[in-house]
Amino acid sequence: MNTQPPDPREKKRRSGGRNGHAASLGRTTEKRAPFIVRKIGCFEILSDEGLSLIEHNADLLLQQTGMEFHDDAEILQIFQDAGCDVEGTRVRFEPGFCRKTIQATAPSEFTQHARNPENSVRMGGRNTVLCPSWGPPFVHDLDQGRHYATHDDFTRLVKLHHTIPYLHHSGGVVCEPVDLPANKRHLDMLYAHIRWSDRAFMGAFIGAERAGHALDMARIVFGKEFVANNPVLYCVSNTNAPLVMDANMSGALKTYARAGQPVACTPWVLAGAMSPCTVAGTLTQVLAEALASLCLVQLINPGAPCLMGSFASTLSMQNGAPTFGTPEAGQMVLAAGQLARRLGVPLHTVGTLSASKLPDGQSQQEATWGLMMSMFAGANVINHATGWLEGGLVTSFEKTMLDADLCGKVARFFDGIDLSENAQAMAAIAATGPGAHFLGSEHTQENFRTALFRPDTPDNNSYEQWVADGELDAATRANTLWKQRLEGYQDPGLDPAIDEALQTYIAKRKAEKPDVNYY
Amino acid sequence: MNTQPPDPREKKRRSGGRNGHAASLGRTTEKRAPFIVRKIGCFEILSDEGLSLIEHNADLLLQQTGMEFHDDAEILQIFQDAGCDVEGTRVRFEPGFCRKTIQATAPSEFTQHARNPENSVRMGGRNTVLCPSWGPPFVHDLDQGRHYATHDDFTRLVKLHHTIPYLHHSGGVVCEPVDLPANKRHLDMLYAHIRWSDRAFMGAFIGAERAGHALDMARIVFGKEFVANNPVLYCVSNTNAPLVMDANMSGALKTYARAGQPVACTPWVLAGAMSPCTVAGTLTQVLAEALASLCLVQLINPGAPCLMGSFASTLSMQNGAPTFGTPEAGQMVLAAGQLARRLGVPLHTVGTLSASKLPDGQSQQEATWGLMMSMFAGANVINHATGWLEGGLVTSFEKTMLDADLCGKVARFFDGIDLSENAQAMAAIAATGPGAHFLGSEHTQENFRTALFRPDTPDNNSYEQWVADGELDAATRANTLWKQRLEGYQDPGLDPAIDEALQTYIAKRKAEKPDVNYY
Repeated sequence: MNTQPPDPREKKRRSGGRNGHAASLGRTTEKRAPFIVRKIGCFEILSDEGLSLIEHNADLLLQQTGMEFHDDAEILQIFQDAGCDVEGTRVRFEPGFCRKTIQATAPSEFTQHARNPENSVRMGGRNTVLCPSWGPPFVHDLDQGRHYATHDDFTRLVKLHHTIPYLHHSGGVVCEPVDLPANKRHLDMLYAHIRWSDRAFMGAFIGAERAGHALDMARIVFGKEFVANNPVLYCVSNTNAPLVMDANMSGALKTYARAGQPVACTPWVLAGAMSPCTVAGTLTQVLAEALASLCLVQLINPGAPCLMGSFASTLSMQNGAPTFGTPEAGQMVLAAGQLARRLGVPLHTVGTLSASKLPDGQSQQEATWGLMMSMFAGANVINHATGWLEGGLVTSFEKTMLDADLCGKVARFFDGIDLSENAQAMAAIAATGPGAHFLGSEHTQENFRTALFRPDTPDNNSYEQWVADGELDAATRANTLWKQRLEGYQDPGLDPAIDEALQTYIAKRKAEKPDVNYY
Repeated sequence: MNTQPPDPREKKRRSGGRNGHAASLGRTTEKRAPFIVRKIGCFEILSDEGLSLIEHNADLLLQQTGMEFHDDAEILQIFQDAGCDVEGTRVRFEPGFCRKTIQATAPSEFTQHARNPENSVRMGGRNTVLCPSWGPPFVHDLDQGRHYATHDDFTRLVKLHHTIPYLHHSGGVVCEPVDLPANKRHLDMLYAHIRWSDRAFMGAFIGAERAGHALDMARIVFGKEFVANNPVLYCVSNTNAPLVMDANMSGALKTYARAGQPVACTPWVLAGAMSPCTVAGTLTQVLAEALASLCLVQLINPGAPCLMGSFASTLSMQNGAPTFGTPEAGQMVLAAGQLARRLGVPLHTVGTLSASKLPDGQSQQEATWGLMMSMFAGANVINHATGWLEGGLVTSFEKTMLDADLCGKVARFFDGIDLSENAQAMAAIAATGPGAHFLGSEHTQENFRTALFRPDTPDNNSYEQWVADGELDAATRANTLWKQRLEGYQDPGLDPAIDEALQTYIAKRKAEKPDVNYY
């Protein structure tokens, strides 16, 4: 264990040894990149005319219906001071007001710093940051099946994610450790991210108090002055669609915005329940809610980093169940990407979602659809890029490995087509000539190590070899792979003084209140 | 059974009853469309500059290295007569010659007629036609596992495909019925397509004799005059990459081209073996081979319908095995779409390919990746859109159902975002208001039947319901679904006079020669 970690603010290049080692497990040959820089464009599903229509409708909605902010008088005052029409908890906005307020001060790009500067992530522009699963109260693996998540599961997931070169962020609630008190477990989760990974991580989202604890802990790790001047946390603020924000969310939003920490203002809707069952109607509502929330961030702290979020999926119109990887969800995220670019803020969205109970054909059809659509949408931050099952109730260890391959694939794909002289291979084609093969050609020998992406989970062998290997399906192979990765996990180390200060801080916070297990 | 089928040349609208019934099996609510008309654009992965580079390199390759045409003196003569440089079996082309020849006469769009005019398919432009798996000598289902395909499997697959509303074409060798003599089974396969489906189907591709039989049978079904003036068959002509076409392929190509039947000139390459291990090099070779083949079609019969084909995937650089659903395969098909559009001919390519041995997480990750990329590429005909497993050695009954859902999803997705007043749902959002839900709203009641696509294979129920239902994975559910579909199959009927004429023709052809089981 490295007991002398570098100053996190130090910019010089460290040895990539640890991540390099993690990447060499399995068959992965990719060099780890701290985030994806997309070299090819985004897919434009709506015309400018269509986008203007959605924007116009969102403005009408904010003017005529407005949005409600519950149990937070301070926020109502902020809007009133800014000249908005406040009536009870309802706030109405003049057309264009939110957009103008956001565009005046919100940055289009910013960096969230990691304690290892090599792992700092750039959000906005052509950059995409992939984060693991967020929120599930259950975990699933093939050995134990589905069970309530524990702090041990949480720690193992943080470590597993840390070994995956295609994830860029340690995330937040990678699962809910339900064996810890509900009102204190955020402290243990934050500590686990800081202690067992040196990548960027998320703050606590629910309520101002927990957000404050995350900031305190970040100050211990990064230093007060650095935190005052740089993003080091990340907050997802969901609305209660349709058109409501409650005090749990507004409390955290205010705390992070005031501290200059990024807030992803993310309406979460299932079309048909929390928004109309049509794509155009849902987009209008999503944009309206995002505009009001982003405007609030900029009124609180002009210039604070923020992202337009969109977590829009669909509902089964047969049984009311949430559905994922659907055509309509794909259409919505592509349009959301265009709307965010026109607004001038980065897009936060979601990845490999599935309603499946298992890491099977359903889960990977839905997951692949979802992640590809979010990438084609030009998303800048993709939450739930790995592991999400059962509509977000489960983080699956095996699906984490299957999805990780997909994360690697999209990274390679969005690196674009190499048009260098070497890649053109004109001499190689001429030298090989008609009817011969390229397996032994000099060009192949020179390029084979890096020419083609190598995922870990597929079995591409012959049928006979596959039978000899035990006729395993992809999930069963993934079961072996995540264990191998966990075995190969290497502790990134943490300065003992920082570690001790964190533990002292956590002990003090925990001692202040009795445990509460339901809230 | 309908014993009075309509004249296939009759254009008036028939009752959609049969396909409608098939579509009502399972939970499918989609109205069957004869093909996809894409209302949104294609993804452009290469800039004009990049495309010009590939085109320039392909021209250089055709000029300096050229292409070989084996065991077919007639083709060499055709090229010589056209002014090409013929040296032995090697043909070299002046830069621009192939492109100019193709662009002078090749149609950009055409219709392949089905015996039921409602099922005729339009190829080119914004249209996409999805075809089932082609070529596997094995079939797989969860009851029997993997086994050599028989004529019974072939017939069941034709019937199953006929019930799937999201497939548009009956295909060709949906599996190889290896219990029939190798030199005669094409007759039985063609008969099965004609007898058990009334959709468009493919001809026999291997050699001039079999191609001639397909034409003879088409003339029995459609009438000689109709066949002389309209596409009713479809031929895929693969090169033997790199840069060779053999007599089996050129024989069929000549036969179909002369008869004015569509030929998809489709270089089949696995990058690293049959082309360079780089995307740019592979694209150059694919374009060169396609240009020479398409040029040949137009020299044989100016104006004959033809498609630029691209079946380009990758090789594992670890064990030499074919790999599918890879980042590089996605890049290649997107660029191929752009190259075909610049050439002015429709694009033929491939769909849900996978190297997996099972309908599992691997197969659906690879399948989803592949079909989505081909759709974003603007492909006009997608072969192997369902069922393909194990690198093309297997057609899977269960994967056919999983892939069919994906075919439905892409159809709905590419229908684009509805921006009608109803879809904007402004009144519905205002009437529902903040904090309420849309489940019971009038707008939802009016739209829920058609608003959201309903696939058949996913389980979106609660965990508890899923447990009560037997904890089935997607493949196991698909096992039940394909049997339900087959049970619900309805015979489209065939005029007994045509049927008898076909059977007489087939008996005569079979009697002419002894059976041959290996060739």
